[in-house]
Amino acid sequence: MSRFLSSRFANLVAYTPGEQPRDQQYIKLNTNESPYPPSPEVIERINADEVKRLNLYPDPAGKSLKEKLAKLYGVEKENIFLSNGSDDILNFAFMAYCDEKRGVAFPEISYGFYPVYADLYHVTHVKLPLREDFSIDYKDYCNINKMVVIANPNAPTGMEIGLFEIEEILKSNPNYVVLIDEAYVDFGGTSAVGLVGKYPNLMVSMTYSKSRSMAGARLGFAIASKEIIEDLEKIKFSTNPYNINRLTLVAGEAAVDSNTYYKENAKKIIATRETTVKALKNLGFLVLDSKANFIFARHDKISGGEFYAEIKKKGILVRHFEKEKIRDFVRVTIGTDGQMDIFLQKTAEILNER
Amino acid sequence: MSRFLSSRFANLVAYTPGEQPRDQQYIKLNTNESPYPPSPEVIERINADEVKRLNLYPDPAGKSLKEKLAKLYGVEKENIFLSNGSDDILNFAFMAYCDEKRGVAFPEISYGFYPVYADLYHVTHVKLPLREDFSIDYKDYCNINKMVVIANPNAPTGMEIGLFEIEEILKSNPNYVVLIDEAYVDFGGTSAVGLVGKYPNLMVSMTYSKSRSMAGARLGFAIASKEIIEDLEKIKFSTNPYNINRLTLVAGEAAVDSNTYYKENAKKIIATRETTVKALKNLGFLVLDSKANFIFARHDKISGGEFYAEIKKKGILVRHFEKEKIRDFVRVTIGTDGQMDIFLQKTAEILNER
Repeated sequence: MSRFLSSRFANLVAYTPGEQPRDQQYIKLNTNESPYPPSPEVIERINADEVKRLNLYPDPAGKSLKEKLAKLYGVEKENIFLSNGSDDILNFAFMAYCDEKRGVAFPEISYGFYPVYADLYHVTHVKLPLREDFSIDYKDYCNINKMVVIANPNAPTGMEIGLFEIEEILKSNPNYVVLIDEAYVDFGGTSAVGLVGKYPNLMVSMTYSKSRSMAGARLGFAIASKEIIEDLEKIKFSTNPYNINRLTLVAGEAAVDSNTYYKENAKKIIATRETTVKALKNLGFLVLDSKANFIFARHDKISGGEFYAEIKKKGILVRHFEKEKIRDFVRVTIGTDGQMDIFLQKTAEILNER
Repeated sequence: MSRFLSSRFANLVAYTPGEQPRDQQYIKLNTNESPYPPSPEVIERINADEVKRLNLYPDPAGKSLKEKLAKLYGVEKENIFLSNGSDDILNFAFMAYCDEKRGVAFPEISYGFYPVYADLYHVTHVKLPLREDFSIDYKDYCNINKMVVIANPNAPTGMEIGLFEIEEILKSNPNYVVLIDEAYVDFGGTSAVGLVGKYPNLMVSMTYSKSRSMAGARLGFAIASKEIIEDLEKIKFSTNPYNINRLTLVAGEAAVDSNTYYKENAKKIIATRETTVKALKNLGFLVLDSKANFIFARHDKISGGEFYAEIKKKGILVRHFEKEKIRDFVRVTIGTDGQMDIFLQKTAEILNER
């Protein structure tokens, strides 16, 4: 830290992304990437002709991608905001909808970035505990008179809450934005996008990083009322108007055009998840009910931290959070069937050694 | 604007990027892009194999690109910060180094984004007038006890100040960051990078968007003391850790490897600029002394706004700023020799019609 840094950031603790070690080839089950490559259309359209045009700025409005997404989700293009990964949407939402007077509430166990944004902008935040079974009790968020941020499915639990619950939260906080972070919705979850027309305070954020196999391209989008989208655009055009590069815009359009490919991949991942859950349960694991492309599991014979370290030695990365209430668990991204077979085999070895 | 938006942003006026009309093909001399494509190495390395790996997150530390840039600029990789275009560097600097107590000073006529950042973060800002001849008087910034932001060469004038002046500003404000925005330095300007080791309060920002023909890829970088870079990393990891996509990192490395190509292009652009300036002067224009890839010019026979409109009708886009003191001028990006021939021909036509 330099002595020039504003004292506002003196105590800020940044987010720690999942490790990306370069020392050896691991089976990466730690950052919820898709094990499948982008669609053939994406690979075809990012070609030399596109690269040759990199001397030109991208369209800062992202008009044609917005049009395609709007059609796919049954909304208008004015209901869509594009961003450099969905983290920027969260960033902008905390910036736009919280302040000294207006705080934010989110689950105690959820995406680890929420409290970082709250600290960054010095926003009062309430971390609401999950139920004993790790589910979210929607009643905790009703009439809370704060911005509400809920990942649905939640991370790292993978568990979802239903639309009825979300509607109750929306209805009881009409003067606050309710942000539903649907990064993992495409793996069997239920989207709240259909409610956008009904609730002007609903904001849904989505990402291309998971089901669309484009974590490396950085593309996220939000769907909300036109007024909310206008706010986000205002923040974007006051920070970084050209926030999405040309090739990512091209890839994003090609991905919408090949939606079937990604739906098939999501189906495969769901099937692999179900097989993996069954196998882990047979090995004595407790596995939470996941609607995401990862599972959250623990075993009485081994702590989360130990399991993480043991399986890393065997060439597999999973994610462990050193945090009370969940330190017994590990989060395991669903890879291909082949990768999960190896994961299960190594897991069985670790348990046998105990 | 929604009714949920924090009142802090109620009066915020966002930045307006140069227009990107889609209605017809223009000769684009309005956003300071390079007229030349990226190097053959860039085009070769963004290939199908790279695109297939887009399912994986990029390296959030950007380690190998930092190493290459450090070598190119004769600094350590800990002196380099990478960002999604250089706008994000400016954004982070205003966020990190200004607050209620610490204001910012920049020239009245300069990059139009500086006052937007100041307004965004509610930072007191002082806009210092240029001299009559549009040059920056460095003495205005000495002992000012605020963050100082100077584009060098300045935009939209294209004029530069020397290192002696910059050193005086650095020395007389030892407790404040002095940010030198060198977006246009590669077209004949003088870089302050060599001073980074000497002044812990110096921050130099650069971009791949101009001389490196990569406006469409979004890559900027800052060079500064390790402590300043740590601050910027802290903000990045608290907002959007994966802010640079995989393909841009690949393109960035390939561009460093083909530095000679870009140096040759910069030479060509300088030569074209000098020819264009001479021709415009022959047509009766006043042209400021430019060290950038654009020129700033005015003619007694036609206002800036009229010239902009007339030449747009003839298929050429230039940039006009509706702002006192410079509304007589137009800013014209230097294109290829062929493009500038057409520009000069159309300009002569417009003057002849008067």
